[in-house]
Amino acid sequence: MAAKERLIYLPLGGAGEIGMNCYVYGYGKPGQERLIVVDLGVTFPDMDTTPGVDLIFPDVSWLEERKNRIDGIFITHAHEDHVGAIGQLWDKLDAPVYTRAFTAIHARRKMEEAGHNPDKVQTMKPWPDTIALGPFQVGFLPISHSIPESSALVIDTPEGRVVHTGDFKIDYQPGVGEAFDRDLWASVAKVGVKALVCDSTNVFNHHEGRSESTVGPEIARFVAEQRGMVVATTFASNVARVRTLANAGVAAGRSVCLLGRAMQRMIEASTEAGVLPDFPSVVSPEDAGQLPRENLMLIVTGSQGERRAASAQLARGKYMGLSMKEGDTFLFSSKTIPGNERGVIEIMNAFSEKGVDIQDDDGGRYHVSGHANRPDLVAMHELVKPQIVIPMHGEHRHLREHVKLAESGGRLGVLAPNGTCVSLSGNKPEIVEYVETGRVYLDGTVQVGALDGVVRDRIRMALNGHAVVSLVLDEDDSPLGEPWVDLKGLPELGSSGASLSDVMEADLDQALQRADDKIILDDDRLDELIRRVARQSANAEIGRKPEVTVVISRLS
Amino acid sequence: MAAKERLIYLPLGGAGEIGMNCYVYGYGKPGQERLIVVDLGVTFPDMDTTPGVDLIFPDVSWLEERKNRIDGIFITHAHEDHVGAIGQLWDKLDAPVYTRAFTAIHARRKMEEAGHNPDKVQTMKPWPDTIALGPFQVGFLPISHSIPESSALVIDTPEGRVVHTGDFKIDYQPGVGEAFDRDLWASVAKVGVKALVCDSTNVFNHHEGRSESTVGPEIARFVAEQRGMVVATTFASNVARVRTLANAGVAAGRSVCLLGRAMQRMIEASTEAGVLPDFPSVVSPEDAGQLPRENLMLIVTGSQGERRAASAQLARGKYMGLSMKEGDTFLFSSKTIPGNERGVIEIMNAFSEKGVDIQDDDGGRYHVSGHANRPDLVAMHELVKPQIVIPMHGEHRHLREHVKLAESGGRLGVLAPNGTCVSLSGNKPEIVEYVETGRVYLDGTVQVGALDGVVRDRIRMALNGHAVVSLVLDEDDSPLGEPWVDLKGLPELGSSGASLSDVMEADLDQALQRADDKIILDDDRLDELIRRVARQSANAEIGRKPEVTVVISRLS
Repeated sequence: MAAKERLIYLPLGGAGEIGMNCYVYGYGKPGQERLIVVDLGVTFPDMDTTPGVDLIFPDVSWLEERKNRIDGIFITHAHEDHVGAIGQLWDKLDAPVYTRAFTAIHARRKMEEAGHNPDKVQTMKPWPDTIALGPFQVGFLPISHSIPESSALVIDTPEGRVVHTGDFKIDYQPGVGEAFDRDLWASVAKVGVKALVCDSTNVFNHHEGRSESTVGPEIARFVAEQRGMVVATTFASNVARVRTLANAGVAAGRSVCLLGRAMQRMIEASTEAGVLPDFPSVVSPEDAGQLPRENLMLIVTGSQGERRAASAQLARGKYMGLSMKEGDTFLFSSKTIPGNERGVIEIMNAFSEKGVDIQDDDGGRYHVSGHANRPDLVAMHELVKPQIVIPMHGEHRHLREHVKLAESGGRLGVLAPNGTCVSLSGNKPEIVEYVETGRVYLDGTVQVGALDGVVRDRIRMALNGHAVVSLVLDEDDSPLGEPWVDLKGLPELGSSGASLSDVMEADLDQALQRADDKIILDDDRLDELIRRVARQSANAEIGRKPEVTVVISRLS
Repeated sequence: MAAKERLIYLPLGGAGEIGMNCYVYGYGKPGQERLIVVDLGVTFPDMDTTPGVDLIFPDVSWLEERKNRIDGIFITHAHEDHVGAIGQLWDKLDAPVYTRAFTAIHARRKMEEAGHNPDKVQTMKPWPDTIALGPFQVGFLPISHSIPESSALVIDTPEGRVVHTGDFKIDYQPGVGEAFDRDLWASVAKVGVKALVCDSTNVFNHHEGRSESTVGPEIARFVAEQRGMVVATTFASNVARVRTLANAGVAAGRSVCLLGRAMQRMIEASTEAGVLPDFPSVVSPEDAGQLPRENLMLIVTGSQGERRAASAQLARGKYMGLSMKEGDTFLFSSKTIPGNERGVIEIMNAFSEKGVDIQDDDGGRYHVSGHANRPDLVAMHELVKPQIVIPMHGEHRHLREHVKLAESGGRLGVLAPNGTCVSLSGNKPEIVEYVETGRVYLDGTVQVGALDGVVRDRIRMALNGHAVVSLVLDEDDSPLGEPWVDLKGLPELGSSGASLSDVMEADLDQALQRADDKIILDDDRLDELIRRVARQSANAEIGRKPEVTVVISRLS
């Protein structure tokens, strides 16, 4: 008897980290499911684990091996952790991309930059419009978040309805973009929802969620009180906030100037898409430089301390001819994402040295999160009334806590970190397979696997330094002179006060003189001997075993 | 006319960062001042800025050049950022060390480990005992903090009294160690205080400070509610907290086991110094392994996510034969220091994967800071009534804010980051000199200067990878075969799909064939050519210019 059709859910990224979202839904006989992909996002490198890497993508090998079964790629919204990898990964999947209009602007640009046809990105209208793809019927259900046209997906399948929230908060006054429409959501839920696949970011925050509209008056009051130049930063993609900041500047009699490529691009795209009405007129950086500083407000990129963004450049000196000084004020209308603290604090101290006053979000006065807090997650569960809750968009601890929260509400919760293939068929969800998942690094212009060893070697060189030992052997395979040691990232002098390379060369020379022909004639054994002696010699001198590269040149 | 005597203050570390404390006071004619040093601490490296480094010290060259004028070194308390560098830096200063008994245990051990005579560390009784050193009379004035026997210094000089707070909070019920003695402090202040040199750590925290005693009942209640094994972490040096945790375990009918070298060492030292009465008896890790887990409480090192500490090892697997599992609970009775978030979060997620419940400090329910919040700083200013407030122990932003706070109270505030030499003589403090300061890295067993380029090269290799190009030239200075390229931390294949080293070797070979003798015969020019071509070639293939080491072997 042939196996029965089943409905599967498989996260390849985003369930076990905040970032790099990529989720798969499938329907069909086991191994023959038709597939749709939700989101293709990036995550960002750090010096601790991924030095030198430019961007990090989910490893989509599993999908690539099944590319003929992929019917479509759906992008929920235009944040980089949801759309950022579309250009780099699209040709591995080779399926049409569906998004709403604002998101499409970003997705098409990324496709073009990667050399793909931007027409592969198709714009969809919001629910109740849907598209039928194989066994799926999919619609974009508007949901409030911190970027325009964020949408949940309503995925109808022969096994019932799945609602994939995407990133969300419940905001009835988001300022820009669609307010949360409780009635619309209730109507979607009414037919019965099999599974709610749900954002988990703020599951540990027990406070009531706050509307974007609550920060406006606070920001306006703050800006009005300042005397010197005011510079504010927030995520460029939070165009509602950017508009709030700009309006606060205008209300305080200031000209507004946008600084940073992402800031300008995002406002342009929003205006183009028609999602950002009434944005005040702005002045160019050149014109801004001519204005009295008390009449100026800059809105800049770099809320997370990014080294190349406008805020960091202003902290170090000038950006586009503009600079900050004593009496000016810098406002973080943003929260520091865990892991970015050092960079942000560095900027704060650099501003402090210039006499610039710094205002952080003051515990939420000048910033609200774009994600649903715990009470709003409960409200979402109760509104959608799914049989099953599958937490996504969170680290493992968030997913686990969200499962507990769902269960405390009497629902089935499924803990499904990346690679967990869950069958949603039958009476009860079942984990049917663990799929190997991972990360791919964009490194310069090349994609390298996280396990290829490239980054591992960089980390080792950073921690241990690198010694290069070169040895030339003559026609008779005798060492021609002493081995030569080049050091990089290692101290010049050892604890004895002698030159480290001299000591290592002497030790290596002695070892070679004692070595018999079996070693000298065998590249591998000779390499091993040199490596071992070099590491021992360095360790005795400096208490550290460096990485060693051995270069043997034989004239024979 | 000879210049007049003056009283100077000079921070060499700790004023511009939290960590690495080292402050200098001097009295005498300019350039002939007798000097005392307060604290010799360390700060900790990170992968972003100091990969591979073991510890970071203040650069004490300024003191070393004046070592014959140093009368003594005073250590305020036993935290690593105050005493940690005493062993490594002592011989540069070569002066007697004064501390209280508990601190002396740690200072002597560090002196011994560095091969110095531990008897150089002399124990002092608390105020009103003092020691006269040259123009100074110095006493240890007990102050509450998060480690036993923390002391402010009362420094009497011919120009008046200076009070150096050290690290502090105002705690009338610290649990372990001396309570803040308001009357004693008032009596010290009564004669008039010229300058208060004051901890700034929590100047941005507007809440009332809370006593260590407030967390005891909360922790006891929490531990009593748990069913599986309970593991708690805090700073080992916060022995009051360790005792609170241990008592909570005992009250809940659990045997207590201490894990981690620092934890055991700190409790032993505290008991030896007689500052930790009534610490409950503990079981060894071996015995703990035999007990039912619901009857066990572990108190472990690693509250900051340190990779080698007990908590991280438990998160990854086993430590001393003990491991955690589903139903167990891990309590962070601690706050994450900014910059350590990634490590702490990694541990939390590893525990989550094991099904371990995690409890953080819950906004202060299970942890209080050891530093004075803003209202307590104001209270300290008002109690001591100094003419001048000099903020220390803070990043630049903390110092600046603390100056503003002092000025808002009608006092003179002096912003004096590291290297600012302030004269406290006369009617008004005056900056008399900027001294060059910096950092020294303990790297393995060797001290290297922060500007020596060693760490810079490591960071470059980590960001860019490292290519080694070897070239052998024959007796006639003609290249013997192709140049040879070894890559480390670079992708094997370029974007063309070809081997990166093959491409680079071919490009280098071509360039060498085109090069004229003026280049081939000149090592510097040949090196430069090879470096340039190697970087261009790599950039074309992988979009990245690696670090390059060129090894030229001439047989001529």
